[in-house]
Amino acid sequence: MNDQDYMDRALALARSVMFSTSPNPRVGCVIVNQGQILGEGATQPPGGPHAEVCAIRDAQAKGHALAGSTFYVTLEPCSHYGRTPPCVDALLAVKPARVVIAARDPNPLVSGAGIGKLQDAGITVEIGLGLEQALEINPGFVSRMSTQRPWVRMKIASTLDGKVALNNGRSQWITGGQARADGHHWRARACVILTGSGTVRDDDPQLTVRDVHTSRQPIRAVIDSQFAIDEDARLFDGNPVWIFVTEYNVAKAERLAARNVRVITVNEKNRHVDLKAVMAWLGQQDINEVHVEAGPGLNGALLQAGCVDELLVYLAPTILGDARSAVAHTPFNVLADAYRFEFFDTAACGKDMRLRARMPTRWNQLQLQSGGTQPDME
Amino acid sequence: MNDQDYMDRALALARSVMFSTSPNPRVGCVIVNQGQILGEGATQPPGGPHAEVCAIRDAQAKGHALAGSTFYVTLEPCSHYGRTPPCVDALLAVKPARVVIAARDPNPLVSGAGIGKLQDAGITVEIGLGLEQALEINPGFVSRMSTQRPWVRMKIASTLDGKVALNNGRSQWITGGQARADGHHWRARACVILTGSGTVRDDDPQLTVRDVHTSRQPIRAVIDSQFAIDEDARLFDGNPVWIFVTEYNVAKAERLAARNVRVITVNEKNRHVDLKAVMAWLGQQDINEVHVEAGPGLNGALLQAGCVDELLVYLAPTILGDARSAVAHTPFNVLADAYRFEFFDTAACGKDMRLRARMPTRWNQLQLQSGGTQPDME
Repeated sequence: MNDQDYMDRALALARSVMFSTSPNPRVGCVIVNQGQILGEGATQPPGGPHAEVCAIRDAQAKGHALAGSTFYVTLEPCSHYGRTPPCVDALLAVKPARVVIAARDPNPLVSGAGIGKLQDAGITVEIGLGLEQALEINPGFVSRMSTQRPWVRMKIASTLDGKVALNNGRSQWITGGQARADGHHWRARACVILTGSGTVRDDDPQLTVRDVHTSRQPIRAVIDSQFAIDEDARLFDGNPVWIFVTEYNVAKAERLAARNVRVITVNEKNRHVDLKAVMAWLGQQDINEVHVEAGPGLNGALLQAGCVDELLVYLAPTILGDARSAVAHTPFNVLADAYRFEFFDTAACGKDMRLRARMPTRWNQLQLQSGGTQPDME
Repeated sequence: MNDQDYMDRALALARSVMFSTSPNPRVGCVIVNQGQILGEGATQPPGGPHAEVCAIRDAQAKGHALAGSTFYVTLEPCSHYGRTPPCVDALLAVKPARVVIAARDPNPLVSGAGIGKLQDAGITVEIGLGLEQALEINPGFVSRMSTQRPWVRMKIASTLDGKVALNNGRSQWITGGQARADGHHWRARACVILTGSGTVRDDDPQLTVRDVHTSRQPIRAVIDSQFAIDEDARLFDGNPVWIFVTEYNVAKAERLAARNVRVITVNEKNRHVDLKAVMAWLGQQDINEVHVEAGPGLNGALLQAGCVDELLVYLAPTILGDARSAVAHTPFNVLADAYRFEFFDTAACGKDMRLRARMPTRWNQLQLQSGGTQPDME
């Protein structure tokens, strides 16, 4: 077991709480001394202890002294009072010799302050081991803290020739059961599942997490400029729904409010809801990751507004020919204008393939904020 | 080194002659005795010696006696007189103890006869080790021998949302340099590169192999029902071109014949060239693999005619929205009617992804013909 192995374990712990820590980041911590794991922990649901405190308690419950130990933690320990006391103080109290951190905390309230306090106490601090993986676990938190907007992941399930539905609207099912189940994992990660009024009208989806176990359902949100949504939509099941409109209707909003639905009026842009304003508002509501499952119109509008950070594409090994495409968008005149992402992950999902791609400028932004290639780190 | 290692070496030798053996299969052979490789070889260009004879000569040139040795060969040794004498006789002459064969020869003139002769001479024969890989090296040969038609591979280069060109026709370039270079490897494998008259008119392509080294250029072929092709097309460079028409024009055909162009009249089907008839004709001309680089119309027609065995899809991590799709095809009313392939290979090509998929019924047919799961082999 070496540094990489212990950090991998800490990253696995962080992933184990993927669905339960929001709006806090998912963090894992492993405490090691002389080749022995003394304690480990992961962030508990909001209000509960953070990873470092869990790991310290785990080690102390087993009777271990922690002086001189090494902490492996996937995110810089917090140094401010939030719902819980600062983790840095808990670390200082047990006198470790060394703290290995995957990513800096982009939270402007922390941002290097935690690291500084540890160094001031004579503790060796190393940063950057496992940074990419740590960032993939918390892109939404890092994005929100550093750019005041969530990380937006757009899901597309299409044939190999890019078709998401027949011309008659049929789309159940383009991809197979394993791809659909995998899709629920990404829904479960998100704080918000976003769709458009057209999808609600045509498919009447529930947009709940079903195929994976989770203690928390994301908030469903609908872009519905005209506030035309059917009040009998299956979405209105008593759990929270947010609707973004430009045309407000007091009576309708009041009837829906009684069913846990919040209607938010947003400025118009190009005769539709200003999507950048929606994302800024979601950031203010502590929304980390937004999962988009929408039709071609909203998909295209989100791309045009620069609001898509990641593509989650399931491809079936099928060809449909003349059928509906995933994205409706004004034709380009030059290829260089295409929206350009970067592939970073490929996996088989049963008979289908899953391809993930992200917007390189946005990812680089998060890397910089997390200490990836900051000049002062070199 | 074990059986698998030696067969892997034989498969690598077969791949090393990928571009030069057609219409013969690409075959590799390794001769081993007591853990020592005595000789190895791969099929030489038509008229030259086959892999087994090359390997025997290699071993004998090094002064090795081959009695009691094991032969690893990727295809059943031939037992008939073609351009060269039967390889089985060459094997019998050197008295090996054991012959390990990846795939049976589907050639009805061989088909088990080679194996029978070896067994009759008291040689142990094992079949099936490396069968899948051996078949991937020679799908065209196996298809032609067993079903009298070539293996048809359709290349598509698209964006992640399935677009192959802008609405204004621009398609240079959807994918990057590495994907395009990889595409030339597949051109080089083929005996024929097939396109449609629309692509010749719009793009005026050369359809030659440029980015990889090859001693042999595939024949270019065009589906051109109306025989409307421009006589100044870049395709007519003096190297052979085949044009499939339903409307013959003697004067035009004669002018083109002087430039190494052959015009073949084919029956009409649905007011177009009968594509199944084209494939049967190509099979008769000893064409093993057909590489399709065509526009949406011909792509759709080939799929509809049941003529597509494999998809070679390069995907760029880009989104274009409203633009041209790879396949034009009458809309389906039910999703179950989609053309259904199976993914079997994924690779990164620079910033793009390459996905390969094949028609499962056709692949199973080849497997059966090669001894994969033949009842009499169990």
